[in-house]
Formats: sequence, structure tokens, C-alpha cells
Amino acid sequence: MSLPSKENFSEWFHEIIQTAEIMDIRYPVKGLYVWFPFGFKLRQLVYGKLREIMDREHSEVYFPALIPETELGKESEHIRGFEDEVYWITHGGLSPLDVKLALRPTSETAMYPMFKLWIRNHADLPLRVYQIVNTFRYETKHTRPLIRLREITSFKEAHTAHRNYEEAEEQVKKAIGYYKEFYDFLAIPYMVIRRPDWDKFPGAVYTIAFDTVMPDGRSLQIGTVHHLGDNFAKTFEITYEAVDGNHYFVHQTCYGISERCIASLISMHGDDLGLVLPFEVAPVQIAVIPILYKGKEEKVLDFSNELLEKLKGFRVVFDKGEERPGAKYYKWELKGVPLRFEIGPKEAERREVVVSFRDEKKKFSVPIEEINEQKISQWAEEMRARLRKKAVESIKLKLKFVGELSELSEIVREYVSIMHLCKNRDCGEEIEKHGGKLLGWLEEIPDFLEVSKEGECIVCGGKGSLAVSARSY
Amino acid sequence: MSLPSKENFSEWFHEIIQTAEIMDIRYPVKGLYVWFPFGFKLRQLVYGKLREIMDREHSEVYFPALIPETELGKESEHIRGFEDEVYWITHGGLSPLDVKLALRPTSETAMYPMFKLWIRNHADLPLRVYQIVNTFRYETKHTRPLIRLREITSFKEAHTAHRNYEEAEEQVKKAIGYYKEFYDFLAIPYMVIRRPDWDKFPGAVYTIAFDTVMPDGRSLQIGTVHHLGDNFAKTFEITYEAVDGNHYFVHQTCYGISERCIASLISMHGDDLGLVLPFEVAPVQIAVIPILYKGKEEKVLDFSNELLEKLKGFRVVFDKGEERPGAKYYKWELKGVPLRFEIGPKEAERREVVVSFRDEKKKFSVPIEEINEQKISQWAEEMRARLRKKAVESIKLKLKFVGELSELSEIVREYVSIMHLCKNRDCGEEIEKHGGKLLGWLEEIPDFLEVSKEGECIVCGGKGSLAVSARSY
Repeated sequence: MSLPSKENFSEWFHEIIQTAEIMDIRYPVKGLYVWFPFGFKLRQLVYGKLREIMDREHSEVYFPALIPETELGKESEHIRGFEDEVYWITHGGLSPLDVKLALRPTSETAMYPMFKLWIRNHADLPLRVYQIVNTFRYETKHTRPLIRLREITSFKEAHTAHRNYEEAEEQVKKAIGYYKEFYDFLAIPYMVIRRPDWDKFPGAVYTIAFDTVMPDGRSLQIGTVHHLGDNFAKTFEITYEAVDGNHYFVHQTCYGISERCIASLISMHGDDLGLVLPFEVAPVQIAVIPILYKGKEEKVLDFSNELLEKLKGFRVVFDKGEERPGAKYYKWELKGVPLRFEIGPKEAERREVVVSFRDEKKKFSVPIEEINEQKISQWAEEMRARLRKKAVESIKLKLKFVGELSELSEIVREYVSIMHLCKNRDCGEEIEKHGGKLLGWLEEIPDFLEVSKEGECIVCGGKGSLAVSARSY
Repeated sequence: MSLPSKENFSEWFHEIIQTAEIMDIRYPVKGLYVWFPFGFKLRQLVYGKLREIMDREHSEVYFPALIPETELGKESEHIRGFEDEVYWITHGGLSPLDVKLALRPTSETAMYPMFKLWIRNHADLPLRVYQIVNTFRYETKHTRPLIRLREITSFKEAHTAHRNYEEAEEQVKKAIGYYKEFYDFLAIPYMVIRRPDWDKFPGAVYTIAFDTVMPDGRSLQIGTVHHLGDNFAKTFEITYEAVDGNHYFVHQTCYGISERCIASLISMHGDDLGLVLPFEVAPVQIAVIPILYKGKEEKVLDFSNELLEKLKGFRVVFDKGEERPGAKYYKWELKGVPLRFEIGPKEAERREVVVSFRDEKKKFSVPIEEINEQKISQWAEEMRARLRKKAVESIKLKLKFVGELSELSEIVREYVSIMHLCKNRDCGEEIEKHGGKLLGWLEEIPDFLEVSKEGECIVCGGKGSLAVSARSY
């Protein structure tokens, strides 16, 4: 099985998910997929990093997947935002339920009635929890594995409560920092974008999103951070007693990342041969491949074992199967194995190893004595830097600054479009008439964008700042 | 808040779950509960061990939570066993669904259509996967946290496929071995019982269960292992090509453990002061408590820091809060902290630490030089042995051999009843007329039971073997 070229991104993505054994897309319900063992391992490694980051100042919890209609409906904007895509459980066994239950689309309305009970006074604040759970959306649009799902199997959602608006805003900044660290770790470039007021999370004061650019020039939202103000606190009556003895509403934030992080990881770094994975999250980090000639097997195997001894702290496969070396290379390239070590009779003789990296064509020889944990970490770090550089270069090709409104329709068909735009809703809506979706305004200018932060609004000529419009997933 | 005495087990259990911050039982839907941070940590540690055991020969996967009615209904016995307790999703947003979706009660019917695709020939066998997922049951009976739930949040279910009946049976034996290892690790005594043929898992050839005994004399099923034969294989057309070129149906097994493992952990070892946890799964393993007198704080704190340095590999709290020492002891006892180290001015002077174990009254002094990882592991191991011994003693008091059928009604009201019984269904049903539920026949005699394996059937006088009847959770 060979993959379609990555030029045909949509086909390539569809194929690699199945062929590299990330997910089985043959489950008999639209929008639902099965995590293969290999994909599941990748998911665990990626989410392990996310947990590590979250655990620094959040506690992991678990709230029920079923939310009674009465709670879900309490915050009116929130329910309006979700009512079209909630799955409703109406029957238990053969009997209709008294109160319909929603399968959580997100957990504000499951958590906040409990926050009301958990928070008594200022000593209980800040409260910071997170969970990694399955959530559900009745998607009527075209579904895609990891990207548009009916069961999001790994939604990491954090929820926090604070004494006032400013402290919640501090948390928003911290959350942005955490997500940057996470995506930098994965070598995935992103834009931090403030969503238009009319496109924020239902119930939020404002929403800041992480968007990346897929190889086909469409944007992908890979994380969101919401300042909720005291909107939900008022609905769910979450108050605390302050030092002054008075009761105040808490101010809240929430922020989430779904398995789209894995979609972006695959799409950003993969190539025509298959996955390309950063060392730290690769289910197989090193493939050791002995080149066996009749009569010289023993020497090669002995030397290989010596090497394997040195690699004990890593996730290694030693592939001494019957296949030709080329077939083995192909197989492990498909799985995105970052490091390959080949050992033939000549190498065993010279006590050398032929080393190659998944993201580079070249091979080179290294004396076995030089291979150790430190060396491998250094290679991993260098590879991450190369992956990020390459990703940035490919993203740059998909971004275009739009100086004139008349050019927008054509540009947005192929590129993520950058322009100066004022905050006026009319101007924002004008942008969307030219195709694409207004993602919002850049919170900060990424290092891969060389444009001036401020300029004249492309629509009205007023004071504008950098905005992004794109066809989005 | 003090706990009710464990003599009133039902009340005690209800209280400890909330007070020790395992779960918040105030979620506004019957049978659904919230895992507190502390409870979640305990869950993670316990399931970490289960994962470690499973990972030896299973791959972790994830299958969707939603199963179409058409698949769930395929195996007729299976659906009959579950139809009264399945939650049905009938609506997506405001529109009715074409095909109703079941929230998985268990995953045979989600997995096996995919197994049909995954298994081609003998080289694909054995197939062994597991997942840890939320599953759902519409319980109409009295619900209880961790025991009888509408959302089982942590169902570990393993599913395997083999070439023939015998190889599947070998897997059944291995699964029993894995579960023994798991419960021995938790110091929880169990009985391995073959369920009556009329009470096996719907669709199975036979079911073997792990049952333990709760402090109130009721039995709790804490694990099940099912031989499925080729029943599901025939329904879902799962075949493989053998070496002889012919196609055969696979033979399957499945086996599961839910968060009842945590219910049993809490119930078996806990006491009137709170949780008692084995060292390896305790969220806090060691509480270090400085006894601070005015003017002598520095010496005590310095010495404490020296001790903390030695405890770096463990989960430790250093409680230098304002409370009196007694209040601190009380707090950490409630949380089941296995080891407590106290340090006052006298100890700092003598370079000693006062050590006590959660499960014993006595305190003793140990020179700081003798405290190291090895010593602590030894204490942990000794504590596990004590916990198991104590658990066995308490279970023995709840078991009674019944020699005469006429005694059964009275005995089964308070005790788990052991008797000789033949395999005849009429005799089994006769047993249940006296109250209690026939759990089945002992697969092996546990070390805490001193009765002869065979004897006359208590009902018909025919050839009987050891059977167990009990009021069960």
C-alpha cells in the first residue's frame, strides 16, 4: 500500500490515518472511529505531555458524561450555542426518562453546579481542575477522523475560578503559555487569535484560539481559551466570601484541546512516505535493522545486541524479520520512527552504526562508543528544531497578506489571508462575504509573519489591526 | 466531621466516599458521581497497576461509546441480557436519528464487527486488546457510588480471539491469574466462582467471577472472565484462514474489572478513622509532621528537611500548618496515609524519627540513618501482608458452612453461605428460594476456607461440590 502524494492533502490524510494504523475508519457509524494500538500509544504519549503541563497547577478530576436538560439549559447563550448538536438520551431501557439527558458536548454545566458547592470562601480560590474525557457532538457536516468527530474521545478541558476579572485574565495568559509550550514541544507553529465577539464561545466574555495552517491552506483550530467573566457564576450562583466578609461572584476561565492536536501533528510533519514524529512522542523511537548475510549473521547480531543494550531507556524495535532491508525501512518510515540504526557486517567489523533520521535523506556512520543517551537527546532536539523550521516554511507559503479588498476572494480560495481590519462588526461581516471565515485578530505576531501590526482597515479605512481570514476545518 | 462506625457499613461507606474526598455524591442525577482530585489520584494509581498487568500481553485501544441498534441487536442472547438497561440516544440536536444509538453497556458489539476486519489468518491470532472506558447502565435499583452506577467511569475490558476453544480456555486461565495478581497487590481476598449456567454473561459459554465479601456479609462481584466460545464469532462472522487453508471461526474471551475494585479496596481495609490504603496506591504515602515548639522551630525544620531529602522518590506531604498535631494526624488518617513520621525537638536532638503505620496503634523511633528506600519498601510489604491477614480474618467471620438446607434461610441473612451443591438447575433454584443469590461453584478453594471440596448436595443428596450463596451487591 502506498500513500497518495501529500499534495492531495485530503486524500493523503484519509489514507495515512488508516495505513499508519492511527485509527480504523471503518466503524459502522459516521463520525466515529477506532483507535488502533499504534494510534492509541501515540495519543497516550502526546496526552502524557499535556497532563504533565496541566498537573503543575491543576488537579485532574472526572465529572459525569450525562448532563440533565435542566442544567444544560440554565445558561441561555450557552444552550443556544449547543442545542443543534447535542445528543439526547431519551430512554433508559424500554422506558422514557423523566428528564432528558444530554451527552456532554463540553462540561461547564456538569461542573459548575458542583463548583457552587466546592467554593465557600477566598481560601478555596483559585480553583483549577481539568479532565480528559470523551465528549459528543451531533455533527451534520462532513466528518473526518481526529478533526470533525461525533465522539471526541480525548477532550482535555480545564476549568478555573478566581476572585475577580483580573485574576481570571491572568489565568487566560497562563493558559496561553501552557498551550504554547505544548505546541512548541510538538514543533507545530500556531497563531494566537482573538475570535470576533460574534463568534466567541457561547457564554464567554471573549475567546482566544490557537489556529494552525494545514497543507491545503485551510486553518485548523487546535485549542481555545475562554474568559467567562462571571456569566456562569451568576447562572450557577457560584460565590465566595471575601476577606471583607461580603460575598462575590467568582470569575471563571476554561480552556480546551482535543485530538485535533494529533491531527495537526500528523498533517504538519508527515510526508509522502508516512508519518514523521518528534522523538518524544513517537511510539517507536528507534528502529534497529540488522543487514544479515548468510554466514555473517552472528557477528551482526552480537554487535546489534551490544547496541540494544545501550538503548534500554528508549522505545526500540529490533527488526530481524525475514523481509528485505528496503521493506523494513519502508515499514518504519510509514510509522514515523525518528531514528534508524542499520548494522551490516562492515559496521560490525568497524564497530560503527549507520544512522539516519526520518526527516532527512542523508545517512552517516557513528562509532558505537559515541552513541549514548545524551547523543540521542541531542539528535532529538535537533530534529525538533528542523521539524519546526520546515513547518514554518510550509506555513509561510500558505499565508498571504491582502492589501486590497478586491483581491480577497481569490486569495482566500488558496491561502490563509492576513489583513488589517477594524473591530467593527460590519467590516468583519464584509470580509466573510468574500469567502472564508474571519478567524479574528492576532493577539501577538508570530515569528513567521513579517507585517506591521497596525494599518488601515481593509474595508472602511479606519484604524485596523492584523486579522486572519481562512477557509477553516 | 467524624465517620459513623464501620459496624454500620452502609452508612460508613456512604460517608467515607464523600468525607475522604473520593467522590462527590451531590451530582444532580441519580447514580452519577464526581471524582474529586484525591479520589481521581487513587483511581489512577490503582488503574496504573491494572494497566501494567494488562500491557504485558494486551494492546490498549479505544472503541466508540456509541453503538448502533443494528449491531447491538445482532447477538440475540446478548441483547436480551442488556435491553432493559441500555441508554438510548434517539435525537441529535432537534432531529430524531435514523438509527438509534446505544451508549455502550459493554463493548462486544462495538468491537467484534471490527475484529472481523482485523483478523484474516492464523498469524493475526491471538488478538488481545483492552480498553479502560466509561460504560453506561440504566440502573433502576438503589444506586451507590463505585458499586452500582449509571456511568461506570472506569471499566477495564479486555477482549481476545484465538484459534480454537482450548486456546481461548488457556486465556481464561491467564486472565484469572492476572486478576489474582491485581487483587493480591491490593490485599483483597476473593473467591473465584463459576457462575451457574443460567446466570452467565449473555452470549458466553461460561462465566467465572471474582467475588469478595463486604463487611456487612454481602458479596461483591469485583471481576468477571467469560469464555465466549464461537458464539459471537458466528454472529459477527469472525473467521481466520488456518495453516490448512480452511477458514474457521475464532474462539473468544472477554474479561472486565470496574471501579468496584476501588469500592472493595475502601471497604475491605478502611476503619472508623477513615481510609487505610496499601502503600503503593496511596495518593499520599508518607505524612511528615513536625512538632513545633516556640523557639525550637528551626532545629526541627532543619532536621525535617534532611528527612524529606531522603524521601524524594515517594508521594510525601510535609504538614507544617498551624493546626495541632492531633488534628493533623486525624486528617491524614482519614486519607489513609500508610506511613507517618513525627519529628519534635527531642527527635531532632537524637536524630531520630517517630514512625507509625496507619493500620497499627504503636509508634516507635528509628534513627534517620536507617530510613531509606529499601526500609520503606520493606515496611510497605509488611503492611500489605498485615492488611491481607486482617481482611482474611474479617471475611472468615462472614462465611458460614451450611450443612442442612433448613438452616440456610437464617444463615444467608447474615453470612455468605457455603454448601455442597450439585449442578442441577432445580437444586440451584431451590437454594435461591431461601433468600440470597446462588453465586455459583468455587473454581478453587481459597486458603481461608477449611471445608472439603466435595460432599452431598444439600438439596438432593447427589454428588455436590462447594457452592456459594449470598446476598449480593
